Amino acid sequence: MATQIEAARAGEITPEMEYVARSEHLSPEFVRDEVARGRMIIPANKVHLKKGLKPIGIGIACRTKINANLGNSALQSDVECELQKVHCAISLGADTIMDLSTGPDIVGIRQRIIDASPVPVGTVPIYQVAEELDDIADMTPQHFLDVVEQQAAQGVDYMTIHCALLREHLPLVEKRITGIVSRGGSLIAKWMAVHKEQNPLYTHFDDLCDIMRQYDVSWSLGDGLRPGCLADASDEAQFAELKVMGELARRARARGCQVMIEGPGHVPMDQIERNIRLQMEWCDEAPFYVLGPLVTDVAPGYDHIASAIGAAMAAWYGAAMLCYVTPREHLGLPTLEDVRQGVVAYKIAAHAADVARHRPGARDWDDQLSRARFRFDWEEQFRLAIDPETARRMWEETARPGTSLHAKYCSMCGPKFCSMRLSQDVARLEQSSEQPAAKTVSSR
Amino acid sequence: MATQIEAARAGEITPEMEYVARSEHLSPEFVRDEVARGRMIIPANKVHLKKGLKPIGIGIACRTKINANLGNSALQSDVECELQKVHCAISLGADTIMDLSTGPDIVGIRQRIIDASPVPVGTVPIYQVAEELDDIADMTPQHFLDVVEQQAAQGVDYMTIHCALLREHLPLVEKRITGIVSRGGSLIAKWMAVHKEQNPLYTHFDDLCDIMRQYDVSWSLGDGLRPGCLADASDEAQFAELKVMGELARRARARGCQVMIEGPGHVPMDQIERNIRLQMEWCDEAPFYVLGPLVTDVAPGYDHIASAIGAAMAAWYGAAMLCYVTPREHLGLPTLEDVRQGVVAYKIAAHAADVARHRPGARDWDDQLSRARFRFDWEEQFRLAIDPETARRMWEETARPGTSLHAKYCSMCGPKFCSMRLSQDVARLEQSSEQPAAKTVSSR
Repeated sequence: MATQIEAARAGEITPEMEYVARSEHLSPEFVRDEVARGRMIIPANKVHLKKGLKPIGIGIACRTKINANLGNSALQSDVECELQKVHCAISLGADTIMDLSTGPDIVGIRQRIIDASPVPVGTVPIYQVAEELDDIADMTPQHFLDVVEQQAAQGVDYMTIHCALLREHLPLVEKRITGIVSRGGSLIAKWMAVHKEQNPLYTHFDDLCDIMRQYDVSWSLGDGLRPGCLADASDEAQFAELKVMGELARRARARGCQVMIEGPGHVPMDQIERNIRLQMEWCDEAPFYVLGPLVTDVAPGYDHIASAIGAAMAAWYGAAMLCYVTPREHLGLPTLEDVRQGVVAYKIAAHAADVARHRPGARDWDDQLSRARFRFDWEEQFRLAIDPETARRMWEETARPGTSLHAKYCSMCGPKFCSMRLSQDVARLEQSSEQPAAKTVSSR
Repeated sequence: MATQIEAARAGEITPEMEYVARSEHLSPEFVRDEVARGRMIIPANKVHLKKGLKPIGIGIACRTKINANLGNSALQSDVECELQKVHCAISLGADTIMDLSTGPDIVGIRQRIIDASPVPVGTVPIYQVAEELDDIADMTPQHFLDVVEQQAAQGVDYMTIHCALLREHLPLVEKRITGIVSRGGSLIAKWMAVHKEQNPLYTHFDDLCDIMRQYDVSWSLGDGLRPGCLADASDEAQFAELKVMGELARRARARGCQVMIEGPGHVPMDQIERNIRLQMEWCDEAPFYVLGPLVTDVAPGYDHIASAIGAAMAAWYGAAMLCYVTPREHLGLPTLEDVRQGVVAYKIAAHAADVARHRPGARDWDDQLSRARFRFDWEEQFRLAIDPETARRMWEETARPGTSLHAKYCSMCGPKFCSMRLSQDVARLEQSSEQPAAKTVSSR
């Protein structure tokens, strides 16, 4: 059975392409052409499709997508809590979720998440391998391939694998302030440092492609050398790996696989555009899936904001998917509330970029909400808000007891100082009168 | 006694210029030249200076400044609570505060705030005038001038006055979705609509300048026609007013006053750069003081984030001061917690822009925090964080009971999956060994 890219190349329009075309307001032929060219991917494992996955397109022609990371750790683990996070993230608009579990019962949690998720699910297979071993240095290539096969058979839609971090890149990391900050990258780096051998995920790339192709699991080529602070951004290590990612993207496509590329990380605002352009050039416009980037390192506790700034800019410049960052990044495993804050911040970033790129229909949402705002239709404002529950709660918390939802003001300005109310008075006064030429007030 | 701009033009370096030069790592001569040229202002009312105001510079050569709005409304009023907000905002890094009180005892609250504030305090005098009248249409020019004089004598450092909204602009507003969203703008528009006369704040501009000059109160020329939604951004009304602001900026400088210009509001990301460039061109590079802008309208409850994105970009393109927006914007009067969220979001935006503009020393803060992060110095990370209290609380909340501050991991990854810990292992392994050429693993 052909993968999406193979079908597209053969001129076929699959039901998934049809579905994506409808939801993106694009023609099926256009979606097919973008998929064939590798500029759009439809991460849809055939196993997950049978379980009710709703396909999405990821690429510059589509609405900007956002991903929410979930999953337990050795120190925080509760399956029901992770499933609550899945539901919360999806209800607030996460387009994909990644199960990044590193704690107990990785395989079982993953199955529950895939079964519960109508959106594509991604994983980082090396976490399972590392969890099953005492030391990552004990990993054999076959062990890794077996885990990838197991996860593919479970229905994982895309996998982050750090194939492009090569042994010769390790010396480039020495100058950095924060070294390697990708977990997968640091695990594979340790393997290489111990064995003094090349990255086995690089040397076994074709074998990995063959498994991915069989289920149509999309590649998410992991950026093991993404910068972990502003000082390390756009350095030799990062760009050396990006070049290899371009080579592997071409090889994966040649073997019938869909590919996207992961990107940074921590990047000052003035370097974001260059990062996006280089990725497009070196990776033949494969969809770029960026983590933030954070535009400053000084905001632990608020990194959803520091990174939403970079994410909005990255998406405006052409990134296709944004991996959220929660307020608890760098400090601990996100709670349910952190997931909410992260998803909303990224939904804002993604939508702002869709508006800025003039994606068809994007601004209609803003216009609808603003019309409701001007006519003091609070219910409609809440309904249209990214997070209706929070908008309503905030209004209610500071409304004077007894203030009704028909009030033509809020507690910020009160009735006398409400500019929109005054503005409506002005419009009535202007319309009801002849409009003589403006005169100046000479009396004081 | 000369104002800062008059002194600068006369070649004098005032103590305030010296102070600003030290805190901005600039030479006193350079500060003087920027002030003389009108590209930097030092809003420092002579009365407030005597009470211990610490002067700041606002302009493209300086660190990006942020302002926090405070003050009661008719529906929410508690002086002690407003003073708590003052302390909270300043301790988190607000560079100026505006007392936007519209409720009871406006004059008394203002005095308490000025007396408590070592940073410049701004106001919007028309709020007091409106509060003192049943209908703004009853305002006389003399009443307005008297209020400005009273506030200047109290020590207000800068005043937002909507002089540039002219009667002939009102028809331009009719096409808008959200009309006039500036409170001051809508009040003055109502006055004009009732009287069918020109804006008295425009016709009495020179009289106002004379009062401002006497105390060296800086102008913050208010943008009464700033867009209140994306659809209204960069429209004829907005730019017609901006042109008049340029004219008034030149007139104010000619009369010995310092001037900054207020800006939007709600602006899609792709229009922000153009807005900044036009302001610079039309207003002779007078410091631009922007509110956000919000890059989408759909995020009530999270408008601090929607606007921090626009604010960071605006500051990167050249805006000099960012007026914060809190999560409760559009929904109610901000609480103390909202003030905290707003100030932190804007501190992030301002600092990210300082890094992107390569302002001297800006990135040192990031590098210091990142170095502490890499050596797992949690205390130092918290200390350097924008909001130390929140960073520490988040770490503690999800740390496993008994986890010490010496732990070389957090609850996100646990010890086994900590990339920075692994990265340090890799560095040790690489350094301790000969580094033979990379070999590939041929066995599977």
